Amino acid sequence: MILTVTLNAALDLTYAVPALVPHTSHRVSEISERPGGKGVNVARVLSALGHATVVTGFAGGATGAVLRDLLGNLPRHATDAPLTDALVTVAGNTRRTTAVVDRATGDTTQLNEPGPHIGADEWAAFLRAYGELLPGADAVALCGSLPPGIHVGAYAELIRLARAAGVPALLDTGGEPLRRGIAARPDLVKPNADELARLTGAREPLRATLDARRRGAHSVVASLGAEGLLAATPDGVWRAAPPSALRGNPTGAGDSAVAGLLSGLVDRLDWPDRLARAVALSTATVLAPAAGEFDRAAYADLLPRVTVEQHASAA
Amino acid sequence: MILTVTLNAALDLTYAVPALVPHTSHRVSEISERPGGKGVNVARVLSALGHATVVTGFAGGATGAVLRDLLGNLPRHATDAPLTDALVTVAGNTRRTTAVVDRATGDTTQLNEPGPHIGADEWAAFLRAYGELLPGADAVALCGSLPPGIHVGAYAELIRLARAAGVPALLDTGGEPLRRGIAARPDLVKPNADELARLTGAREPLRATLDARRRGAHSVVASLGAEGLLAATPDGVWRAAPPSALRGNPTGAGDSAVAGLLSGLVDRLDWPDRLARAVALSTATVLAPAAGEFDRAAYADLLPRVTVEQHASAA
Repeated sequence: MILTVTLNAALDLTYAVPALVPHTSHRVSEISERPGGKGVNVARVLSALGHATVVTGFAGGATGAVLRDLLGNLPRHATDAPLTDALVTVAGNTRRTTAVVDRATGDTTQLNEPGPHIGADEWAAFLRAYGELLPGADAVALCGSLPPGIHVGAYAELIRLARAAGVPALLDTGGEPLRRGIAARPDLVKPNADELARLTGAREPLRATLDARRRGAHSVVASLGAEGLLAATPDGVWRAAPPSALRGNPTGAGDSAVAGLLSGLVDRLDWPDRLARAVALSTATVLAPAAGEFDRAAYADLLPRVTVEQHASAA
Repeated sequence: MILTVTLNAALDLTYAVPALVPHTSHRVSEISERPGGKGVNVARVLSALGHATVVTGFAGGATGAVLRDLLGNLPRHATDAPLTDALVTVAGNTRRTTAVVDRATGDTTQLNEPGPHIGADEWAAFLRAYGELLPGADAVALCGSLPPGIHVGAYAELIRLARAAGVPALLDTGGEPLRRGIAARPDLVKPNADELARLTGAREPLRATLDARRRGAHSVVASLGAEGLLAATPDGVWRAAPPSALRGNPTGAGDSAVAGLLSGLVDRLDWPDRLARAVALSTATVLAPAAGEFDRAAYADLLPRVTVEQHASAA
């Protein structure tokens, strides 16, 4: 199975309003509620790809109960592999994120709660659960922001535990947790261009990606938005791009790329095929209405059409 | 006891953000969660004034459970009278309202969910509960919007039932439910200037207030924001105003005015004293941070300083 860790899981609300006008009152015309947080989105895509997946991290309070209820009752296809809830219960309330979609422009305004405070005993309980899950995992994804109370080196700690258990670890986060995490030598990090620039100080993607790799990650796959992925690996440097830029909702595209990379790792694909899978999934997610979902027909159609080019200045 | 009816109760969330910028992402720096809906706010103020109060209406789903939990665990003063939860459980999810407070300007952007759909059997269950509560009530307040599924003449129906039981009814709503409700001859309606103008077509407050009274309400008390209240009653026409305009959060000021008017009715005060109580409470609410709460010291200080003038052109 593949394990995904979401320390700051969320109940994702989407509100449709005719037009968002600050400092006025709005009647929300449409509401959707889904289980969220990057690792949860990654898990849903992995399950859809046929990988048995276990979700861990934290959930608590009334919103945590709703999140777990939704996670246990996801709409499923016949070919989906099991998605198991192994979230650790905490006293605090799981955060809500609210995406306010302006019907007039299609733009989204995001309001993200910080998440519950995690106590030392709760972190200890998580470490025990994580330690018990690792031996059964083919790979682990560590995804998203840290909730209040968790030490900034938490991902570094989880990467070291994964390495000790012989389980490849992928890290998808930003800021100081990314900086510390890379130093703990994960198998893969997947920063976006902004996170990469903040980490390395370099704006040029290739330079920043190579720099990030030198900081300790075995491989670095940078997501460049609509332009696809840039990968610096021990086997070489590649650029992978979708056949054409597509308009849609980019939310969750990065999470689908993570799922594609992990899936390719577990299936022992070579790098060009892993990257093609990640780009096709990511692009098919832009075409789907909600994060954690992708357009299956578009994925099948896109997969053979992704271009992967090895870079001349290989690492 | 005083009965308050909140057919569309709400879980009120307040989000503080440094500045609300549409189409960007915001980290919410402060969250508060309170039981809401106009009738719930009215009940809290009544309880603080020493009136035993019963809250009815609908609550359901995960947000309904949170609402009821908060309602049962309100911070209380020693002098508060009991506030009893007699909400009727429904299958749908109680709505959330989110007030996004922009720290830079102090302005608020409001996002209101529509509320759960109420089925015919749920409305019938409510009517049974309402019929059982009415004989014990000294007065009833019917407050706020109607959730989906409730017929537009619902308040008119509840007013007729209250009249048949000999219980004075106060109506605080807008639009067509207000128009129909007034025709059922409630003891008191409390529209604001906008609702009054929409109802009567008259922009001038005195003219609109007198017109509203002719439509069937025994008395009409119009709230004119910072300028106070304008009352058209069988005993005369009065204007009541706070000693000075005060800056603060006007959310809930109208609900506190309703509580003051009901409290004065039950205590058999004459109109000038009822209006003074309502204006002092309303103004003391502007000075408090959250709806349903008022600054008790400010209330005591303001009460003797409210000016109440009888209007020359008495009704």
